[in-house]
Amino acid sequence: MMCRTERIEQALRTYMTEDASASLLKESMSYSLLDGGKRIRPQLLLLITEMLGGKEDEAMPFACALEMIHCYSLVHDDLPAMDNDAMRRGKLSCHARFGEGNAILVGDALLTKAGMLLLAQDGHDEAKRAIFEGAYAMVSGQSDDLNLKERTAETLERIHLNKTGALFRAACTAGAYLSDPAKAETMREFGDAIGLLFQMTDDLLDEEKDRLEDKLTYVTFYGREVTKACIETEYKRADAILAPYAGEAAETLRNLIQLLRSRTY
Amino acid sequence: MMCRTERIEQALRTYMTEDASASLLKESMSYSLLDGGKRIRPQLLLLITEMLGGKEDEAMPFACALEMIHCYSLVHDDLPAMDNDAMRRGKLSCHARFGEGNAILVGDALLTKAGMLLLAQDGHDEAKRAIFEGAYAMVSGQSDDLNLKERTAETLERIHLNKTGALFRAACTAGAYLSDPAKAETMREFGDAIGLLFQMTDDLLDEEKDRLEDKLTYVTFYGREVTKACIETEYKRADAILAPYAGEAAETLRNLIQLLRSRTY
Repeated sequence: MMCRTERIEQALRTYMTEDASASLLKESMSYSLLDGGKRIRPQLLLLITEMLGGKEDEAMPFACALEMIHCYSLVHDDLPAMDNDAMRRGKLSCHARFGEGNAILVGDALLTKAGMLLLAQDGHDEAKRAIFEGAYAMVSGQSDDLNLKERTAETLERIHLNKTGALFRAACTAGAYLSDPAKAETMREFGDAIGLLFQMTDDLLDEEKDRLEDKLTYVTFYGREVTKACIETEYKRADAILAPYAGEAAETLRNLIQLLRSRTY
Repeated sequence: MMCRTERIEQALRTYMTEDASASLLKESMSYSLLDGGKRIRPQLLLLITEMLGGKEDEAMPFACALEMIHCYSLVHDDLPAMDNDAMRRGKLSCHARFGEGNAILVGDALLTKAGMLLLAQDGHDEAKRAIFEGAYAMVSGQSDDLNLKERTAETLERIHLNKTGALFRAACTAGAYLSDPAKAETMREFGDAIGLLFQMTDDLLDEEKDRLEDKLTYVTFYGREVTKACIETEYKRADAILAPYAGEAAETLRNLIQLLRSRTY
């Protein structure tokens, strides 16, 4: 039996091969979307859906659309005019492999395909909206980060709640809409907590790799010790939200936040 | 009383100012979206809707989403890695004004906002799907054009039916789905005809401006005379589809295709 990430991988592959035609666009989209990535956002969406009594089959297209959106943002983020990264997930980034023009189109096409995939599903309008609202908040956070004017605690929080947090929030909110809409607000808060947990631990790891330069991160703004304390706070906030739930999905979520917390130890 | 393009302009402005917050992203999106452009695609969508008995109010968000998608494609198309155009609609193009990184984000945000706008509407799933299918076909045509391998009649037709034709087709098909879905196939054909009419007359005009270089266009492939004959064929095909219809919207559509045909005289 396949595990959850394998099922996500298989679903992504199926969506990419529905159209049998061959083209460089399809090849370059598949290059960037498949065989890489931890699939944390789609896993989160599926886990919340299952924890709240929904069905994985119904949630899978939403989970995959979210991963396509995440992947488009990485492809555009890696471009020379943005972060200028030639490597991604252990291989050449999209523009380093296929050229800048193609990488721009790959990102555009992945975002468009995410929209098509959502629109192909009947109903679940709230879940669809949550995902596109997340995509918009993400791009708005990227813009704030790119055009950074002031290094304040408010700016830092706003940027990270959007840039990284938005898709985590969208994953958790959409998962609730797909199963138990009354829990949408609570799961949105869980999304915020896990998004911050992810971002803060990422900032700590990045600092260890000495790649921070003059970026505004939790570590450059607050220092390591305060960041570690904040990680504990967010971990506890997320764990408390999970407390009422039992079963495999809830257990896996508990493991996931523990793993995130401990990846900087 | 405002005319149709003024109502489109006003609606676009309203969608851009719903969120009262100020940001560079919003400023740069508005810069590229507002005060410019002939608004042909949204007009087409509204005109088809009205000709087939639908309501402009209901169709307006769909028309504006389509224009946002068209506009995002122009912003990305103008980038140095694509067509490298520093001017657009009589002013600096987005990246020339705000930098490449911001222009990439503006395009991403406009496509995302188009998706949000569609998802905010209740029902009309077929119209929503038609618009995103058009957006995908467009990016696929752009990719074929960018990675051009063979200069054949089939390639030329496929690229233009997608790159330019896709949004015209989407406008007309969505207009039918918003009013009289039984006419969707016929209006899709009308969209193909008007898309080709637009592209072929554009190719003739571009040639006169001596900007073609080594691009694959109807004029560089078939020559001026054959292209003019094809324009007549597409004009007649479009006009025949309109023949059964009377009223202001049908008359305006008849004028529109006449104007397109005659703009190269």
